[in-house]
Amino acid sequence: MAAGETKEAIWHGGDLATAKALFPQAPKPWIDLSTGINPIPYPLPELPLSLWQRLPGKTDEAALLAAARKAYRIRPQSGLVAAPGTQILIELLPRLVPAAKVAVLGPTYGEHAPAWRKAGATVREIGDLAEIGDANVVVLVNPNNPDGRVVPQETLVELAAALAARGGFLVVDEAFADFVPKMSLLPILPEGAVVLRSFGKAYGLAGLRLGFAVGEARCIDALQAMLGPWAVAGPALHVGAVALDDADWLSKAGEARAADSTRLDTLLTPHGRVVGGTVLYRLLQTPQAPALFERLGRAGIYVRRFQHDPSRLRFGLPGDEAAWPRLAQALMSD
Amino acid sequence: MAAGETKEAIWHGGDLATAKALFPQAPKPWIDLSTGINPIPYPLPELPLSLWQRLPGKTDEAALLAAARKAYRIRPQSGLVAAPGTQILIELLPRLVPAAKVAVLGPTYGEHAPAWRKAGATVREIGDLAEIGDANVVVLVNPNNPDGRVVPQETLVELAAALAARGGFLVVDEAFADFVPKMSLLPILPEGAVVLRSFGKAYGLAGLRLGFAVGEARCIDALQAMLGPWAVAGPALHVGAVALDDADWLSKAGEARAADSTRLDTLLTPHGRVVGGTVLYRLLQTPQAPALFERLGRAGIYVRRFQHDPSRLRFGLPGDEAAWPRLAQALMSD
Repeated sequence: MAAGETKEAIWHGGDLATAKALFPQAPKPWIDLSTGINPIPYPLPELPLSLWQRLPGKTDEAALLAAARKAYRIRPQSGLVAAPGTQILIELLPRLVPAAKVAVLGPTYGEHAPAWRKAGATVREIGDLAEIGDANVVVLVNPNNPDGRVVPQETLVELAAALAARGGFLVVDEAFADFVPKMSLLPILPEGAVVLRSFGKAYGLAGLRLGFAVGEARCIDALQAMLGPWAVAGPALHVGAVALDDADWLSKAGEARAADSTRLDTLLTPHGRVVGGTVLYRLLQTPQAPALFERLGRAGIYVRRFQHDPSRLRFGLPGDEAAWPRLAQALMSD
Repeated sequence: MAAGETKEAIWHGGDLATAKALFPQAPKPWIDLSTGINPIPYPLPELPLSLWQRLPGKTDEAALLAAARKAYRIRPQSGLVAAPGTQILIELLPRLVPAAKVAVLGPTYGEHAPAWRKAGATVREIGDLAEIGDANVVVLVNPNNPDGRVVPQETLVELAAALAARGGFLVVDEAFADFVPKMSLLPILPEGAVVLRSFGKAYGLAGLRLGFAVGEARCIDALQAMLGPWAVAGPALHVGAVALDDADWLSKAGEARAADSTRLDTLLTPHGRVVGGTVLYRLLQTPQAPALFERLGRAGIYVRRFQHDPSRLRFGLPGDEAAWPRLAQALMSD
């Protein structure tokens, strides 16, 4: 297979079919560590057939939004909209700022910059917030994917005010903030900031498609208008409402995944330097990264590599006991 | 409750919570005839947990799109995009034509005109295609909701060509075409036409959120860009692929619903004139419509009324045997 054919998919990760095509001889089952999705999902509640049959009702949506407000500690004055995943919000947000000048704090999740470019914005990737220049929109992921870097709240509050004065806003993607709630900007959300929250990662249900945007009513109303009614499926509304109301599960899941990530670090450190991450993924730096990617792939283990830095690999957490020794063995066998 | 408070929801229909609030004393269970959704859904296939856990994969999406191409008889050269329901496509389509001059053939489904207005278009509702004037976009629902009116294919082909020449296009919403496949424009889709298809109505799974747009690549690619990857949930991709591949179920469901709609007409004709509909809903005209709406509501039966014409009520099909005698009795008890 020519490298170019699957390039986009490989660099994105998360699509195991691509890994299978790259390593057709790999032993099964595949161990997919290419995402930052919690491998131990929130237990699906019973889903009455009516959730599938009828259009999602206002009552179901209200229950979800109330649970989200409580779980994410959203200020009463902040607007909140639910969407079928955060990705579509990433696509639609740029439609709110014509000809935006955007600075994306990178390296980070690869979908932000292209979404703004598609909408006609000028986009620069910056490595430090000191470099925002004349940008009227700044996008950052907090904590960052893949390196876990955290920008402090005070910095974000100042930045939001500066961008609001320029007619733009600050986008803070908190896709991985569930297990570090203290760092969320939501309880003190200032004017000029829009926060994105993903349901699927911490709750291990990415296929459900559920995400949120929080911000000023003007901005949130415009997103809601583009999504229209019933954008979120009935089952997703229900699962989201139940799960977001379950603070106990989240707390225990956070402890368990922290233990898993410590265990993962122990496996990884002989092979390079763990330079960052969150409790859902760890970032390994080593000159051997390309060879390690190949070795793991041939052993049926799919990890995330990066176009911008071939010396790094991101490891999600194994989801069952059988996966751990397979990972340990594949790492050692060089 | 003041009429104004729930006005929007009442006129839309489909949200039973509103009916419950309007008629708190009504006997239970409620019989919801306010939508045109098949009350006998496609039997849900088994949904492996992996569909909920992982991001929807390219393979799953490809399977859905292949099934849709076959079921809807889409031309190989036509572009096809799947979305979380047709509604979001109705919201996003207007973003493709800046400052459009739109004619909506009405009365029809109420969400088309506002979606174009929100995007900055000038919108006129017309009662006849002879009145399109200088419009560069024409929107019609075929067969129409609520009256079942069908515009012939030859007319649509001519209209699409005329609108393409004006830099716009024809939007044909085929939400209720599944049971009348011969009238679909898709097998002969001309340039300048975009067809919308809804999965949830014929298959009775509106809560799943699945819809499609078919048209020229330029237009479909732009819709895909706004939706981004993974807009459709994993379970929806799978259920849609299985159901759309099951031509036998669709054929039998069509026969059964046709029998139901004949049975419904028999109940309705003593109370007015059935002036149209499809096999999933019947449109009753009678000066007594407002009183009938009230009487049915007090009996726990929710039907659809219309802001544009208070002399009409739309009846969906009862979904179980217990509902039929309750409907018959509520209709008679005046």
